[in-house]
Amino acid sequence: MSELGPEIVERWANTRGPLFTDMYELAMAQVYVSQGISERQAQFDYFFRSAPDYGTHQAGFCVSAGLGPFLDWLGSLAITSDHTDALAAMTSPAGTPVFSAEFLDWLGAPGRFDGIEVRAVSEGRVVHPHVPVISVTGPLAVSQLLETSLLNHMNYPTLIATKASRVVRSARGGSVLEFGMRRGPSTGVNEGIRAALIGGCTSTSNVEAAIALGRQPMGTHAHSLVQAYMALGDGEIEAFRAMASTAPDECILLVDTVNTLRSGVPNAITVFDELRADGHEPVGVRLDSGDLAYLAVQTAKLLDAAGYPDASIVLSSDLDELNIWQILTQIGDDAERVGIDPAPIRKRLVYGVGTRLITSHGSGALNGVYKLVGIESGRSASGEVDWTPAIKVSEDPGKVPLPGRKTVWRLYDQRGAAIVDLIGLADEDPFPTDTITAHHPNRSGMSQTIRRSDISHVEVLQGLVTDGPAESMDVLAQRCADDIGRLDAGVLRLVNPHRYHVSITDKLNDLRRELVANAH
Amino acid sequence: MSELGPEIVERWANTRGPLFTDMYELAMAQVYVSQGISERQAQFDYFFRSAPDYGTHQAGFCVSAGLGPFLDWLGSLAITSDHTDALAAMTSPAGTPVFSAEFLDWLGAPGRFDGIEVRAVSEGRVVHPHVPVISVTGPLAVSQLLETSLLNHMNYPTLIATKASRVVRSARGGSVLEFGMRRGPSTGVNEGIRAALIGGCTSTSNVEAAIALGRQPMGTHAHSLVQAYMALGDGEIEAFRAMASTAPDECILLVDTVNTLRSGVPNAITVFDELRADGHEPVGVRLDSGDLAYLAVQTAKLLDAAGYPDASIVLSSDLDELNIWQILTQIGDDAERVGIDPAPIRKRLVYGVGTRLITSHGSGALNGVYKLVGIESGRSASGEVDWTPAIKVSEDPGKVPLPGRKTVWRLYDQRGAAIVDLIGLADEDPFPTDTITAHHPNRSGMSQTIRRSDISHVEVLQGLVTDGPAESMDVLAQRCADDIGRLDAGVLRLVNPHRYHVSITDKLNDLRRELVANAH
Repeated sequence: MSELGPEIVERWANTRGPLFTDMYELAMAQVYVSQGISERQAQFDYFFRSAPDYGTHQAGFCVSAGLGPFLDWLGSLAITSDHTDALAAMTSPAGTPVFSAEFLDWLGAPGRFDGIEVRAVSEGRVVHPHVPVISVTGPLAVSQLLETSLLNHMNYPTLIATKASRVVRSARGGSVLEFGMRRGPSTGVNEGIRAALIGGCTSTSNVEAAIALGRQPMGTHAHSLVQAYMALGDGEIEAFRAMASTAPDECILLVDTVNTLRSGVPNAITVFDELRADGHEPVGVRLDSGDLAYLAVQTAKLLDAAGYPDASIVLSSDLDELNIWQILTQIGDDAERVGIDPAPIRKRLVYGVGTRLITSHGSGALNGVYKLVGIESGRSASGEVDWTPAIKVSEDPGKVPLPGRKTVWRLYDQRGAAIVDLIGLADEDPFPTDTITAHHPNRSGMSQTIRRSDISHVEVLQGLVTDGPAESMDVLAQRCADDIGRLDAGVLRLVNPHRYHVSITDKLNDLRRELVANAH
Repeated sequence: MSELGPEIVERWANTRGPLFTDMYELAMAQVYVSQGISERQAQFDYFFRSAPDYGTHQAGFCVSAGLGPFLDWLGSLAITSDHTDALAAMTSPAGTPVFSAEFLDWLGAPGRFDGIEVRAVSEGRVVHPHVPVISVTGPLAVSQLLETSLLNHMNYPTLIATKASRVVRSARGGSVLEFGMRRGPSTGVNEGIRAALIGGCTSTSNVEAAIALGRQPMGTHAHSLVQAYMALGDGEIEAFRAMASTAPDECILLVDTVNTLRSGVPNAITVFDELRADGHEPVGVRLDSGDLAYLAVQTAKLLDAAGYPDASIVLSSDLDELNIWQILTQIGDDAERVGIDPAPIRKRLVYGVGTRLITSHGSGALNGVYKLVGIESGRSASGEVDWTPAIKVSEDPGKVPLPGRKTVWRLYDQRGAAIVDLIGLADEDPFPTDTITAHHPNRSGMSQTIRRSDISHVEVLQGLVTDGPAESMDVLAQRCADDIGRLDAGVLRLVNPHRYHVSITDKLNDLRRELVANAH
């Protein structure tokens, strides 16, 4: 293991630049360059093998996120002499250079990353296992080089957008705020927050990320504010008064530092009355510990009785989709027992969701992969690429990727619900006959029959990505919400969801069988 | 929820700048400024409440990481008009500005982040629950502002350095390479990789992070290289020959694309023979699927028989500390059964550890917090700060932080093993008498007796952080290894570790009891 000298290291920031990739991508690119096959066209597909399984609950779908930042990165790639110098300094165990001058010249050539064609499912859309979310076509060596960065740009954001969409769904219309930066993965929280907004979070506590994403950051205050006043000889109510007088129009008070129902809420109401007397309307309170459902019902009763039926109740403390579901269920039970209507309580709740969202609690990684599916075996007289499908055999049939250049259709039933993602070859017609056989993507012999007459609409899911302005968070979040609205209730279940059908056509099934047989 | 206009957004990168903090820190700082108490001295402690519990296994200690980058961030803070403009544009539900001109003037004043004193346990050291790893002292408003960024800088790196140290330990001297960027948390992987190197990983596959950290990145090749040659009508061996001829002095061949023992290893040996005939020494093979322990033994036998007893065998595929432990145990069993010595097999193994390290599989977040422990109640005639300890009461006694300004001593026994971290008040002597009572940090009534005669060395754990050059990865990794070497075997157990004693002195115990009683 050689170390790099400080004259190289000090020029580097540890960021996501052009060498934000795995070493073996460069090693393979060098092989392709030295063997004279680097410029052959190749296609790689990005897909994931299964939606997250959180242990006690499971995702029935994923929300695609990360495409925009990946395209920005791809568009910004520029290899400089800093990069080639650092690579030139790397040595083998025998002391010889790892990278040849020929390869470094190739890598540093202007426009090296031009000529990459990206077809993708739009960011923010609902996506399912096995479906190529992104297909990259371009020179073999360059499209190989992109692998690790593409995976890094897509896997974590898709994981977090998926989790966020679940939390937002469990909140049943209540706002969900992202609060995770304190325990999240260092700078990765910024990409996680972007994904959380796509999944439906209203905003985030992270000031810098919120501004960069065009949202106003949200927050209340910490226990330390009350602690500070208490240590100085004052009480909770003086801390609340300080907060209210400083920010009279956005006053949300944290009421659990001393005792929620005996101290926090009564003190908050006193201060709210003072605010109102001064012509300001208080915003709400926050509960951060204890039995949140019970406390929310009791707090709502106290606020109602004091004349604050519209004051928000912000809940925080290790929330996730199951906890929120449980809280809302218990609020229904508790409210019924004390004879009040739970609906207005639910409507005033806001959820601050931190660690469990930003780390995708229970399933900390998405198993997305980037697999070679086709390569140029020659050119026709007119210069058209002759594509040969590539396969990877595996002892585990579930791990044999779908070979060749493909098309994905999403089929909607007569109610407008998405019912199957059908994957076929690039030049296929999804319905060559009125009834087709749709095969399980990795279980041999399992298939279903689909009648064209049952289908209201056939959508081509991937599109060619072209240069254009970045899509706003609002557009992406709306796209996600629209797509979720087209899923069946069974697929949306938080626990044990119905499995959405992803199927492959006869022709793709035959091609894979043939390639696997040839490989063995 | 108002949105920020594009004229503000487009000036922003989503990075870790001066507003990489939670909104509520700014809200509280504004309260302190408006109430005239922003410049009072305050102390906040950073500590975590428990070491990670991975479900089936548990950490007996943590490895502190993140301090260096936090100090770099702190030293680089500069509020510009971009920042104050963005804050000035934020509005309350009533449409009024969230931040006053007075507060923004205060925030943007030159030298705003000067005057912060940081005392800390050195980065890379073994640390335990409840111990203040960092103590920040400075003006109340500014030290409050630092909270979220400090937590973000420390929690995830400490989590990953801890996991890495466990994986490295389970590898028993085999090199561990960090391979996680493809499924790790976006740009957060860079901080995770730095932490993994502190925890003992030899290097990483991430080219950019490796260079920035002064290491040579490591890698082999992917299945796609073999796939590409096969799709073009060649076989695995042609792919191996291409790799070997391009990089003859660092040839590591991935042998599981077709069939490890029937195809991959025999083909690799053929190519190794060709390399050697040309005067090059092959480096090794990589196994990425199947029963890694069985395949490692069989591969070692084949390589030995062919004359390559020193060729490395790189293992990868969802590795973590338990899997590696299991693999090494099984190799012992398998080797014995086939009558060969397992020791040389273990010695040639290298581990590529990806997703489960970079996501801290099983425990995705460290529960580190930043709590107000003291505040200036006045000044003496000579200008010395009079400190009042701050407390936060909680219904859960385990969540009451240790109040006041404190000192931490690490006590070593006569063998030189660290046996207890003792936390006392700042002006205490750890051994006012020859025998002291050391109290459990959060279980009332539990204590142990410590005799000074049993202690060989008393170390003050926190030190004042002063400006200086950044510490190298080698220094940090060595510090970690040295500290781990001073832990008892029981504390180092991967499963069900012995609980290292963290205790508090009589005086600190009394102070907390008194403050809690007063608060109630």
